[in-house]
Amino acid sequence: MSHTAEIIAVGTELLLGNIVNTNARDISQALSAVGVNVFWHTVVGDNPQRLKEALDIARRRADIIITTGGLGPTYDDLTKQTICEAFGKPLVLHPDILETIRVYFEKNVHMKMPSNNVQQAELPKGCTVFDNSVGTAPGCAFEADGVHVLMLPGPPFEMLTMLKNHVVPYLRRLSSEVIVSHDIMTFGLGESPMEELLREKMSHMENPSLATYAKPSEVRLRATAKAASQEEAEAMLAPVVKEVTDFLGDYVYGVDVPGLENACMALLKERGLTFATAESCTGGRVAERITALPGASAVYRGGVVSYWTGVKADVLGVPAEMLDTYGAVSEQTAKAMAQGARRITGADIAVSVTGVAGPDPDERGVPVGIVYIGLATPEGTFCRPCDFGKRRRDRIQDLASNHAFDVLRRCLTGLPISLS
Amino acid sequence: MSHTAEIIAVGTELLLGNIVNTNARDISQALSAVGVNVFWHTVVGDNPQRLKEALDIARRRADIIITTGGLGPTYDDLTKQTICEAFGKPLVLHPDILETIRVYFEKNVHMKMPSNNVQQAELPKGCTVFDNSVGTAPGCAFEADGVHVLMLPGPPFEMLTMLKNHVVPYLRRLSSEVIVSHDIMTFGLGESPMEELLREKMSHMENPSLATYAKPSEVRLRATAKAASQEEAEAMLAPVVKEVTDFLGDYVYGVDVPGLENACMALLKERGLTFATAESCTGGRVAERITALPGASAVYRGGVVSYWTGVKADVLGVPAEMLDTYGAVSEQTAKAMAQGARRITGADIAVSVTGVAGPDPDERGVPVGIVYIGLATPEGTFCRPCDFGKRRRDRIQDLASNHAFDVLRRCLTGLPISLS
Repeated sequence: MSHTAEIIAVGTELLLGNIVNTNARDISQALSAVGVNVFWHTVVGDNPQRLKEALDIARRRADIIITTGGLGPTYDDLTKQTICEAFGKPLVLHPDILETIRVYFEKNVHMKMPSNNVQQAELPKGCTVFDNSVGTAPGCAFEADGVHVLMLPGPPFEMLTMLKNHVVPYLRRLSSEVIVSHDIMTFGLGESPMEELLREKMSHMENPSLATYAKPSEVRLRATAKAASQEEAEAMLAPVVKEVTDFLGDYVYGVDVPGLENACMALLKERGLTFATAESCTGGRVAERITALPGASAVYRGGVVSYWTGVKADVLGVPAEMLDTYGAVSEQTAKAMAQGARRITGADIAVSVTGVAGPDPDERGVPVGIVYIGLATPEGTFCRPCDFGKRRRDRIQDLASNHAFDVLRRCLTGLPISLS
Repeated sequence: MSHTAEIIAVGTELLLGNIVNTNARDISQALSAVGVNVFWHTVVGDNPQRLKEALDIARRRADIIITTGGLGPTYDDLTKQTICEAFGKPLVLHPDILETIRVYFEKNVHMKMPSNNVQQAELPKGCTVFDNSVGTAPGCAFEADGVHVLMLPGPPFEMLTMLKNHVVPYLRRLSSEVIVSHDIMTFGLGESPMEELLREKMSHMENPSLATYAKPSEVRLRATAKAASQEEAEAMLAPVVKEVTDFLGDYVYGVDVPGLENACMALLKERGLTFATAESCTGGRVAERITALPGASAVYRGGVVSYWTGVKADVLGVPAEMLDTYGAVSEQTAKAMAQGARRITGADIAVSVTGVAGPDPDERGVPVGIVYIGLATPEGTFCRPCDFGKRRRDRIQDLASNHAFDVLRRCLTGLPISLS
């Protein structure tokens, strides 16, 4: 039997627009992966009357209700009390949880547990407890009147940890069906041409199914199978993933890889190579993306943000006459920047970006959206010219950094760096 | 009379967790600023039956309903039709809007308008039309049975543009009251000590009111006044903003400034100075934040991401014996990095960051969270040591880049760079 869920986020800060409801997105993703349909998201403030109304509506239309927030120790944290009243469940003190919270305070906050926090150890009678390994408020779940009610804390990191460790296993047990997905990550082909290419394949497919999701200049293809077991689902998916991956060829940069920078890091590690960056219009975005990954120091030596033309000449050694003749935004300069970064850092490979992010054309009249990606390797120096058109500054910077990583991963896999 | 709003986002992609509902946050912020209470957010899929149910619930509990999404030209864009049925409003074709969409296609998409898009020119009879200057789907508003219904497109950039240009003016007209806010931006004091400091002031205040909002390592203090006119509200706010700003002194980095990097850019422009960066553990975040701002080239020369120790020595000229003696993560190295960045870029001032972002301690055993911010100026070289504790890598990188900008703005305003 397939389940229907509603996610209720509790918190006035959401209704004031101070924070965005990432919890609803993350829970939805997790539920979708275990085959639970999410039909509603609701947000209410820290107001017991309105939370009560939301619960009354939700229990009529969903058989799984997941709440986030309002499990803290302060006077406006009323989710647990309100839910217990609505479902006629008494709250009982769990001495073992109280002890866990007491120890958490001593170990992590280096203070005695305030008396307020005692109420965090009170949970609905007979519930399943979800331990909170990264905070104080435990979550829990119970079933009443045919509805499963799950309460999770509001802070995203606590919620995410509990979602993975407790909620997903709990929900899996409710369902006889297993849903497994794999993401085929592609770069260089838009969503419409991708759908056109795959139309025939996609329209025939129901289980496994194939869906496209567009990110800026990337398309994620998700293959999903429903089956009685994980093994069966994997066996159904394997030929589909292989067929689509083979069919799309060079556009695919990985399966179940979060992003291009992760793919590049894995390739560099595999090959025992290091790289460096020289960035102008991306102003450090390429460096920032690789250094966001733990362990980046194994593959990334460093780089130069050569925002001023003088820095291109003085630090990267781009010849002044080249800058005069061709300009800072040119194929020649992109190549010289990459060579410079490679030389001064001693890296095996260097990638460079120079272009016009806007809002205005550069001083030579090069229009907004023109970007050159340079690549210096032991085998030679290359360039991919790009024209992103007149877009917003941040979009051009994002696109350019994506192309820089794509040039790098194509170089590392022996592909031509130009997009056909 | 004060209004109560519900925001209904329509889109299956939200329920699948493919995107996060930033529209609800942005609309909530705008409504809060014009004095409309938002008591509910709801998300439903592209399903007319469930949207109808959501509308029936919303009209009983709110007198302003704002929908986003489902105004596109495809078969699953059903918001307008469903709302018109629910409120008994006929849809009528607006020839002038049809012409606008036709022209938009020719000018921006370089193609003839597909016949599908004709339905985007059909709007509820007698509605107020909200032009879409950055897309094809117009929005609109009407009043029925004492409820104001506003329909906005789903793509965030289109929604935001329409929110500012049409929705806020429309809602202002519903109210006889004007609400004006100013944000006092502070750095260096946590939310709890800030509230403690201001408790006496804040508890007495109702109109203007004062509220705190915490971002990582920053606190935004919002002063808000309700009055009959903009002028009256501004006159009420001016003494409060002055009093609080004076009281908090050095912690305040600006009023109505989006972030520390904006404050630094303004100060550098004012003083005709340029700066440069040398980043280790932040891996380009400081550079990326300043170059995200249009016009950064007036104040930012460039920088070095000296991720490897060798790059600190070879490119920034940090003496090898200093690196040997004190290590890459040390006050000495931070200062030498800043001096090096200043020298090789020719900037007036340079800021450096070196530290341990984790997840592991560095090879000398310096623990996660230890970060040094260096500053090189014509007057001398300085350092702010920081201990952020064992946090997540991205948090430490964010905090460190915030501190780098704080050191810069303190230097530019003649303050001591250490936080008291």
